[in-house]
Amino acid sequence: MGKEHFAGIFPYLVTPLDDEGRLKEEVLAGLVDHLIRKGVHGFTPLGSTGEGAYLDWPTKKRAVELVVEAAGGRVPVIAGVNNLTTVGAVREAVETERLGVDGILVVLPTYFPVSDRQVISHFRTVARAVSCPVVLYTNPTFAMWDFTIPALKQLAEEPNICYLKDASGNIGKLMSIVTALSDRIKIFSASAHVPTFVFMLGGVGWMAGPACLIPEQSVALYELARQKKWEEALELQKTLWPLNVAFQKYSLAACVKAGLEMQGFPVGSPLPPQKQLDGEGREAVRKILRNIGAL
Amino acid sequence: MGKEHFAGIFPYLVTPLDDEGRLKEEVLAGLVDHLIRKGVHGFTPLGSTGEGAYLDWPTKKRAVELVVEAAGGRVPVIAGVNNLTTVGAVREAVETERLGVDGILVVLPTYFPVSDRQVISHFRTVARAVSCPVVLYTNPTFAMWDFTIPALKQLAEEPNICYLKDASGNIGKLMSIVTALSDRIKIFSASAHVPTFVFMLGGVGWMAGPACLIPEQSVALYELARQKKWEEALELQKTLWPLNVAFQKYSLAACVKAGLEMQGFPVGSPLPPQKQLDGEGREAVRKILRNIGAL
Amino acid sequence: MGKEHFAGIFPYLVTPLDDEGRLKEEVLAGLVDHLIRKGVHGFTPLGSTGEGAYLDWPTKKRAVELVVEAAGGRVPVIAGVNNLTTVGAVREAVETERLGVDGILVVLPTYFPVSDRQVISHFRTVARAVSCPVVLYTNPTFAMWDFTIPALKQLAEEPNICYLKDASGNIGKLMSIVTALSDRIKIFSASAHVPTFVFMLGGVGWMAGPACLIPEQSVALYELARQKKWEEALELQKTLWPLNVAFQKYSLAACVKAGLEMQGFPVGSPLPPQKQLDGEGREAVRKILRNIGAL
Amino acid sequence: MGKEHFAGIFPYLVTPLDDEGRLKEEVLAGLVDHLIRKGVHGFTPLGSTGEGAYLDWPTKKRAVELVVEAAGGRVPVIAGVNNLTTVGAVREAVETERLGVDGILVVLPTYFPVSDRQVISHFRTVARAVSCPVVLYTNPTFAMWDFTIPALKQLAEEPNICYLKDASGNIGKLMSIVTALSDRIKIFSASAHVPTFVFMLGGVGWMAGPACLIPEQSVALYELARQKKWEEALELQKTLWPLNVAFQKYSLAACVKAGLEMQGFPVGSPLPPQKQLDGEGREAVRKILRNIGAL
Repeated sequence: MGKEHFAGIFPYLVTPLDDEGRLKEEVLAGLVDHLIRKGVHGFTPLGSTGEGAYLDWPTKKRAVELVVEAAGGRVPVIAGVNNLTTVGAVREAVETERLGVDGILVVLPTYFPVSDRQVISHFRTVARAVSCPVVLYTNPTFAMWDFTIPALKQLAEEPNICYLKDASGNIGKLMSIVTALSDRIKIFSASAHVPTFVFMLGGVGWMAGPACLIPEQSVALYELARQKKWEEALELQKTLWPLNVAFQKYSLAACVKAGLEMQGFPVGSPLPPQKQLDGEGREAVRKILRNIGAL
Repeated sequence: MGKEHFAGIFPYLVTPLDDEGRLKEEVLAGLVDHLIRKGVHGFTPLGSTGEGAYLDWPTKKRAVELVVEAAGGRVPVIAGVNNLTTVGAVREAVETERLGVDGILVVLPTYFPVSDRQVISHFRTVARAVSCPVVLYTNPTFAMWDFTIPALKQLAEEPNICYLKDASGNIGKLMSIVTALSDRIKIFSASAHVPTFVFMLGGVGWMAGPACLIPEQSVALYELARQKKWEEALELQKTLWPLNVAFQKYSLAACVKAGLEMQGFPVGSPLPPQKQLDGEGREAVRKILRNIGAL
Repeated sequence: MGKEHFAGIFPYLVTPLDDEGRLKEEVLAGLVDHLIRKGVHGFTPLGSTGEGAYLDWPTKKRAVELVVEAAGGRVPVIAGVNNLTTVGAVREAVETERLGVDGILVVLPTYFPVSDRQVISHFRTVARAVSCPVVLYTNPTFAMWDFTIPALKQLAEEPNICYLKDASGNIGKLMSIVTALSDRIKIFSASAHVPTFVFMLGGVGWMAGPACLIPEQSVALYELARQKKWEEALELQKTLWPLNVAFQKYSLAACVKAGLEMQGFPVGSPLPPQKQLDGEGREAVRKILRNIGAL
Repeated sequence: MGKEHFAGIFPYLVTPLDDEGRLKEEVLAGLVDHLIRKGVHGFTPLGSTGEGAYLDWPTKKRAVELVVEAAGGRVPVIAGVNNLTTVGAVREAVETERLGVDGILVVLPTYFPVSDRQVISHFRTVARAVSCPVVLYTNPTFAMWDFTIPALKQLAEEPNICYLKDASGNIGKLMSIVTALSDRIKIFSASAHVPTFVFMLGGVGWMAGPACLIPEQSVALYELARQKKWEEALELQKTLWPLNVAFQKYSLAACVKAGLEMQGFPVGSPLPPQKQLDGEGREAVRKILRNIGAL
């Protein structure tokens, strides 16, 4: 499989759950179909927004299976692998690959702090256990570690580690990564970043929760970026930005799930004790979606 | 079951694992027996040091079963319940209670941040699912939340929430908790605190990893505290303190596991990607244990 | 001058200011006299509570002169030296010594971060510029540095660096300092710590804002500690603790100044943009002082 | 004076000092002249890089006087006002305005934390004390506060508060500011940001230390941005980026001063206890400047 084929808008899919925490399979399948019709270029189930950290393996496995099936080869699926131990992450990665995904995104949550050496070893071991492309993920706001440039350099030597999704929001850090590693690691934007700028830096796509709610607008943004119409892209970006702000103010999964409910997808609530969207947050999200034309 | 019966030295048991991450059952049983003979007053398997955040449920379940069996009713067992979701924590708590434990210690790891309301709801829901006493646990250094006094006041109204283990190391916070809640919540010291001072504040015991390595000395410290021989307790404390310092400098589980290996218990290493103790750390731990007379 | 003669309760004196920021000299002199009559063992003008970071040199100089004069040799005066540059701190230290103080407390505020080497160099250079005893001060919550044990070891080699006031509130850190350095550095408690425990660790006194408001109670606490009546000291401590909590919840100088106003000392307000005590804070402080019997 | 006339490259001037901390007047005048000949559009003496937090008022006053004189009306001068108290900042601001500057940049260092209300009051009071345009400055990495959007909205109502220099490095925050306030506040980039992106967001210029070392390249970057040649700007940006990285790795003033020494301007060292550039840092800066063609 070529390393270069992931690009564009990859919604960080929510995982629809009923009140008992069971997967709402039809809702997920319907959402996948809807988003493909809206033009998205791929899917990332079980990322942060997908509550990958909170779900048990049978639910995660079934969610990935369903997304692969519903996508039906029309667009690639890059599934999240989110496990505190290396051995657990390897097991999840191997089983996930068997489900027919096109790539995996590896998230490393932590309980105790880890150092560079542990971080490198974890991602390298997981990458070597699969043959599909691997997206490295970092979010130093939530986890107690971040990739250093030397760590990324070592990891980029693995033939199937070819992408990075950096959710730090630190555009200077991304600039440093691009100047040091642009020939070996491709960047996906997170919604903590301004995607237009990540595209300008050579970013190949946008993987984040908002694309579940505003797929058309996200695809339009990507198209403008691909045509290097930077100013138009930025103007569009500005109209979409309030959604990013809401995501940071309120809780991520709660925002996306509530917005999808408003759009007619009964995806349920995030698993407690995650924050639920309260009345004020709900009104804010509703107003923003209306302004964007997504409701 | 009375609320008041937990007191004294409760080693935060390590979970002995082989290179494949499988439980070394005989080693664990032997360690339990050894520590009882050294005078400890109870056990806390699956705390932080017990890698409760890193193990899968079958391993956790078997570890608790074994500790309950090996303790054989000689001392109480308070098992850790460590789960990111409330529904998962409830399930673990209920199954753990069925294994015959005398209490549970509830740890709330996080991926996304949580607020007071979520924290209260999580601990309350878990407590209500069991009938055994519950120990609240907080470590704001590792998790992204801490108990506020108002949250503790609400939680203390649950009839079976009767203990708190605060691993913040902030003695002023503990003083505030004691002045506000001493009649309703009993305190266990963590090794981030100076146990002698926690005992002076009315603390009923010490739950932490070091007691695995220095059970006799820990029991002696507790006895001095019980006899209100505060100065002697503090003198003993000073001789033991370098071990606490090493635990904070190097990684917790790695320190305890390495020290136990030196003492003849082949407990293995912490699960990657947790930090392993390097040569320098190993020498430091060895020297400290020798100075204390624990090697 | 002997290194060992500072001990007991040293109120961190506020600096009384009128609305134009001018020193209210008589109020300061009256406060000093009042506190001596209440039994305090010394004074620390120009500490954090004394707004040492906010005042210009002429005001600071006049405040120290006045305190030295009002104390009249009855108790020692240890004046704060608070300057961002080493050359400025040296100048202040030398001029402060000439004003007849018995010692200086050196505070290092920062704009850019500093490392161990810079910290050591700053305190050493200031200490060598004077012949009086020096108290090292650290508050890692507000400044962006903290003393490491190796840094303290180097600084303790200076003959006139003989005291440390650690305002971190981390009792474990203090335990580490005491086990490593108790023969060479004497400790003063800050109000972020529980003074009773600092006394148990060998602390020689308490330097902090609350002693301005509750001098008798602070002296009583010290006396109990001197007589090693630890449990009685701790019982007294518990009754005083709500004041420490208020200090941390509301702003330090604002709390002490408001409380002194209630006690009849028209010390004015902290210099803006420091926080002023609002109505709610004022009520909280009033209630606490009444409960303690200090109003 | 119109509010809108500041734009382009404003070097954050270093303050040349000899070993006794005295201003090297001729060096400063020479540097100003050199930078004007290299095309810069204005000067900001006494910013962070200018050690505005570390210098006494006579030195600051003389530095501003000299820069105004050396600039001779050829380009505007926006001088830093850096004072912990509002009354001190007002005094500095008024006296600075009298020295003939075209604007002031207000920096608020802190000792104790401040809240929104204090922040608003400080900047508003300073702005009302002068008639020249005011640049708001924030650097949440070093100070313990940051502008909230509501605070900026209130401050933007002051007729002479017309600019913001945000040194947070958080491009998402800047995007939020621009979407909320672009009609009322103009943005200057800091070197913690990627200036090209700030220009795309409508930023009017770049105020930072690196422009002292690479004035021609900075001006070229600005020109490309003005012509909306975004991709060329970003390509140029990438070649300059290693200098930003060095500034963050080593200390700011130390980097700029060392680089200027290499370029033949004997500006001396930053005032201790600020970090000095060590041999390794010096080599890194030298290599980077050579690669850029600035040495």
